Amino acid sequence: MAEQTDVQSVIDTAHALADAARAVILPYFRSPGLTADNKAAAGFDPVTAADRAAEQAMRAVLAERRPADTVVGEEFGTTTGSSGLSWVLDPIDGTRGFMSGTPTWGVLIAVSDDTGPIYGLIDQPYIGERFEGGLGRACMTGPRGPVDLVARSDRSLAESILFTTFPEVGNPNEMKGFQDVAAQVKLTRYGMDCYAYALLATGQIDLVIEAGLSNYDIQAPIAVIEAAGGIVTDWQGGPAYQGGRVIAAASRQQHKEALAILSRVPVE
Amino acid sequence: MAEQTDVQSVIDTAHALADAARAVILPYFRSPGLTADNKAAAGFDPVTAADRAAEQAMRAVLAERRPADTVVGEEFGTTTGSSGLSWVLDPIDGTRGFMSGTPTWGVLIAVSDDTGPIYGLIDQPYIGERFEGGLGRACMTGPRGPVDLVARSDRSLAESILFTTFPEVGNPNEMKGFQDVAAQVKLTRYGMDCYAYALLATGQIDLVIEAGLSNYDIQAPIAVIEAAGGIVTDWQGGPAYQGGRVIAAASRQQHKEALAILSRVPVE
Repeated sequence: MAEQTDVQSVIDTAHALADAARAVILPYFRSPGLTADNKAAAGFDPVTAADRAAEQAMRAVLAERRPADTVVGEEFGTTTGSSGLSWVLDPIDGTRGFMSGTPTWGVLIAVSDDTGPIYGLIDQPYIGERFEGGLGRACMTGPRGPVDLVARSDRSLAESILFTTFPEVGNPNEMKGFQDVAAQVKLTRYGMDCYAYALLATGQIDLVIEAGLSNYDIQAPIAVIEAAGGIVTDWQGGPAYQGGRVIAAASRQQHKEALAILSRVPVE
Repeated sequence: MAEQTDVQSVIDTAHALADAARAVILPYFRSPGLTADNKAAAGFDPVTAADRAAEQAMRAVLAERRPADTVVGEEFGTTTGSSGLSWVLDPIDGTRGFMSGTPTWGVLIAVSDDTGPIYGLIDQPYIGERFEGGLGRACMTGPRGPVDLVARSDRSLAESILFTTFPEVGNPNEMKGFQDVAAQVKLTRYGMDCYAYALLATGQIDLVIEAGLSNYDIQAPIAVIEAAGGIVTDWQGGPAYQGGRVIAAASRQQHKEALAILSRVPVE
């Protein structure tokens, strides 16, 4: 993306996607008629009508504005393009939180090239918050107007606030690795889905550790957090943009201390 | 409170308290200069400057508008009045969530007589949501305007969504009791503090189970949930307004099924 005009097109398109998703999703949120079905053979993985409708709305915007780009979506798979850029979409990250009425699910929109995500956007439609990072940006808008995103970099592991979505984290080895880090930090909290990554980028928390992620769960958070000065890798310190086991840290020191524990978890 | 004028005075005063707390607290939320200290001899219990300033602001409103009422606050104890009515205040319920930047802490304001809470208000200043119940009211306002509060009543325990704030819940017996209920429900989520009670009153979730609560943690949720048609008791089915072990349920059937499990937890 050497051309500035293309950079602006990508950013404008990302916001157009987020606007389209908001309009589609919000009428379903906290609606008594909310429908869900179970797409996972084992376990509980609700997919709402909102999830599908929002991805269709975003794909329609991309078909018009960026027809040469690849589209990778949670609900409708991959549509291969020729430009070298991919849009990686999770219309509702945190569907269980969504089904419970919590305001901490989000719309995830990432733009990737062959090096991984170069731009990401996390949108929380009900609160009206939008976090974005990459292509020269690191900012959010919300109920109190625009705020720059800057991860904090002044804390040790012992002073850190750690988040994950649910206490099981993943398989028993992964849960044990998480618990070993949790035993070293000041505070561990649960239940925020993608919102935890946004909190890290805003300088509020220090670590997010998860396992079993898909590429569309993590690509937007990677771009937002890296733009804010944080670091996101897998539990061996390698790239995390394909998903799996992920650690996001506000600073390199916290990342190093946590990774010393997580890297001992046996690889499957 | 036989007099309608007194009912209106109480409701107007509750909203004035919530407005005063909002104005004081919001500048501290997600502020880089947030200060905290540790008031608990053991464990982690941050109390922010916002917590104290908000309670002082609410006490100032009460001293002017309702000087004959008793005031019970988390931060500054009890000021005894003569009217027979008590204001029970928790300026920031969910201080750990507040310190982490999550938008699911709340200002809790309850009005009680010798029968327990008769009116309650749960305010989430950042999102701009306010839930209230009692004295003929059961409603919320938020980003999408006013909504009536109605707990849902159409689900079995097996279909229920259960919330608590942190996985340990309380002591090991209390954690075991919680886990025995969690094993019977569809979905268990963590980390919402008082916001979980608001979600129950809005018809989004079915059960909230906690232990170790103080009276100021639960009196406002009791009034809001009962006004929405739900039920709140201790784990033996008795009154919960003094705190301790609490179960809130959307329906009597869910309450009965969960209580059959929780009532077996040994009393301390």
